[in-house]
Amino acid sequence: MSLREKALKLHREGRGKLEVKSKFKLETKDDLALLYTPGVAEPCKEIAKDKEKVYEYTTKGNTVAVVTDGTAVLGLGDIGPEAALPVMEGKAILFKEFADIDAIPICLDSKDVEDIVKTVKLLSPSFGGINLEDISAPRCFEIEARLIKELDIPVFHDDQHGTGIVVLAGILNSLKLVKKKIEDVKIVINGGGAAGTSIAKHILSAGAKNLIVCDLNGAISSDDENSLVKSHHRDLAKITNPNNEKGNLKEILKGADVFVGVSRGNLLNEEMVKSMAKGSIVFAMANPVPEIMPDVAKKAGATVVGSGRSDFPNQINNILAFPGIFRGALDARVGDITEEMKLAASYAIAGIIEENEITEEYVIPSPFDRRVANAVAEAVKKIAKK
Amino acid sequence: MSLREKALKLHREGRGKLEVKSKFKLETKDDLALLYTPGVAEPCKEIAKDKEKVYEYTTKGNTVAVVTDGTAVLGLGDIGPEAALPVMEGKAILFKEFADIDAIPICLDSKDVEDIVKTVKLLSPSFGGINLEDISAPRCFEIEARLIKELDIPVFHDDQHGTGIVVLAGILNSLKLVKKKIEDVKIVINGGGAAGTSIAKHILSAGAKNLIVCDLNGAISSDDENSLVKSHHRDLAKITNPNNEKGNLKEILKGADVFVGVSRGNLLNEEMVKSMAKGSIVFAMANPVPEIMPDVAKKAGATVVGSGRSDFPNQINNILAFPGIFRGALDARVGDITEEMKLAASYAIAGIIEENEITEEYVIPSPFDRRVANAVAEAVKKIAKK
Repeated sequence: MSLREKALKLHREGRGKLEVKSKFKLETKDDLALLYTPGVAEPCKEIAKDKEKVYEYTTKGNTVAVVTDGTAVLGLGDIGPEAALPVMEGKAILFKEFADIDAIPICLDSKDVEDIVKTVKLLSPSFGGINLEDISAPRCFEIEARLIKELDIPVFHDDQHGTGIVVLAGILNSLKLVKKKIEDVKIVINGGGAAGTSIAKHILSAGAKNLIVCDLNGAISSDDENSLVKSHHRDLAKITNPNNEKGNLKEILKGADVFVGVSRGNLLNEEMVKSMAKGSIVFAMANPVPEIMPDVAKKAGATVVGSGRSDFPNQINNILAFPGIFRGALDARVGDITEEMKLAASYAIAGIIEENEITEEYVIPSPFDRRVANAVAEAVKKIAKK
Repeated sequence: MSLREKALKLHREGRGKLEVKSKFKLETKDDLALLYTPGVAEPCKEIAKDKEKVYEYTTKGNTVAVVTDGTAVLGLGDIGPEAALPVMEGKAILFKEFADIDAIPICLDSKDVEDIVKTVKLLSPSFGGINLEDISAPRCFEIEARLIKELDIPVFHDDQHGTGIVVLAGILNSLKLVKKKIEDVKIVINGGGAAGTSIAKHILSAGAKNLIVCDLNGAISSDDENSLVKSHHRDLAKITNPNNEKGNLKEILKGADVFVGVSRGNLLNEEMVKSMAKGSIVFAMANPVPEIMPDVAKKAGATVVGSGRSDFPNQINNILAFPGIFRGALDARVGDITEEMKLAASYAIAGIIEENEITEEYVIPSPFDRRVANAVAEAVKKIAKK
């Protein structure tokens, strides 16, 4: 049976992947009197007196809403809120499996920024955090920024930050292997959407100086109006491409140390990889077909190659980030997931692999490495304490 | 330990009562490839092609949102969305326990009708039904009516209909016992709020002719402006009190066959019960203190006495209604829960007790009678098929 058939069969047999259960047995009148009326009035009254106690007597503090409008689902694009639900359910079971967080899919029937912001705010009382998912750029930037500002619970758009956090971990370990410093290397990101923009900011916050983002019209540059295809490219241009390099990906990539692809399959060829500096690092993360197949990149001379694929070494999987980030944020009851926490998460993921364990094929821990979520959560909590 | 202490301890130890789990194990790369990327794209694509398939490949069809604004929680009143959460979690575990439905608390931070209607509509793609809960009158009427009209999934305000469905079942069996017909009896409902209004309509739909609702200023009568305290009382006056009786509860209750109380504790005294017709039926459902204590009503001569309390016979508990109603509505994929379905639910609940089993102390099945939810679901599905 093909993967397609197996996946359809599984989803059909389960009629979805999630279920909502009681933590307690409910078999007798006494159970009912404690868990429902009249006993349930007692925690209600306590919370009515002191709203903070909602974290003590309810699941709020361990519950995350996985919110989407279905506009940028996987590589499938704008498929609508119903068709996005299998992904949101999948995300929810990952939250439970990797961080014991109770996550609930909320698929919204509107693409309007105001609608989405208002709806999430109105339903926030029963949630401890908001994970935005698969919302297309540039609306995702404004939605996330507004919710971070207007809500007192943590809000995190995983598509923006998750990949950035994990790929930075991979870059940090790769640079140790090739003995280069992040301040010194030239990094080229291909793809100026939500993920590429956030990855750029994240890598910059780790100390990178020479970072260039390429989009449809080549290198984004503040003095090349033609390159500023989307509204947020103007902001991006201010903080990237310090030498105002111009040209297409092929031209920009010459001599670069690091390539990060969040674009489309088969955009990168052997010749382009060969044109990079010695000890080159290639993270080709387009899904399901990467910008260049990992084995081809390797053959063309890249020292470290990573991708989103589980059938090649160095899989960049955001499972390494979001469960631990939310675990830490919920445990520490932080109001915001700060840039410092995201950076600490990257260092924590990278740090799972001891320096003497790092190899060309092992710069990123396995998605199933159970040490990761805990290390990330601890790193987030440490920052929260400061 | 007191009930209060026990209930607080239990809620604190669990940090709430709900958890969200995967139906499948997620331990290997293969599991991940089927439940999440890349396999999850397959059900997404199927639903994108045909939206109906969301019922086949996701949990939507078995998931109910338990929606409140926290304005009319138990007997506690307007305690806010956070303080309402323990009740919504309780409701969710009842849904699971009694009907294997996955229910999710949604506590909204607004009391505005437009806000609530719009929010529920926007989040409806991931839900198979909407259970409105503990929303105060008269907003609850408009919110329910609007959502029923504007959504294609079933919407049900349990506080309005749940009690009505169960108390009618109790009245039907009581009338068999005292050998009276519903068309012939005088029924007095005390309390003209959401529950009282819905109970009145529900009993009328079963064939009652002489039904009077009393509120703060006595019997609601179309030719007594003074009795029309709230806006919806005008509609109620049109369909009740055919003889335009006037006066307070004490006066109206004289010679009545049935009393239904959804008002306040200790409103009914022995003298008033004694003034009722022979073979009188008293359902005193104020919580936690009934309009009259069941043993006192019994001593005063009532033949059948029911209340909301589990420590007396004939407990009127809406657990008997909502799990089966939603189970039936979800299984039959109905767009609305019709009056005919609610009536069928009452007959199904009443019918659990064979006519020769009915006694003064057993007109209503126990809340833990596992036959009830299934019988109600089947009754709803039968109507849906017609």
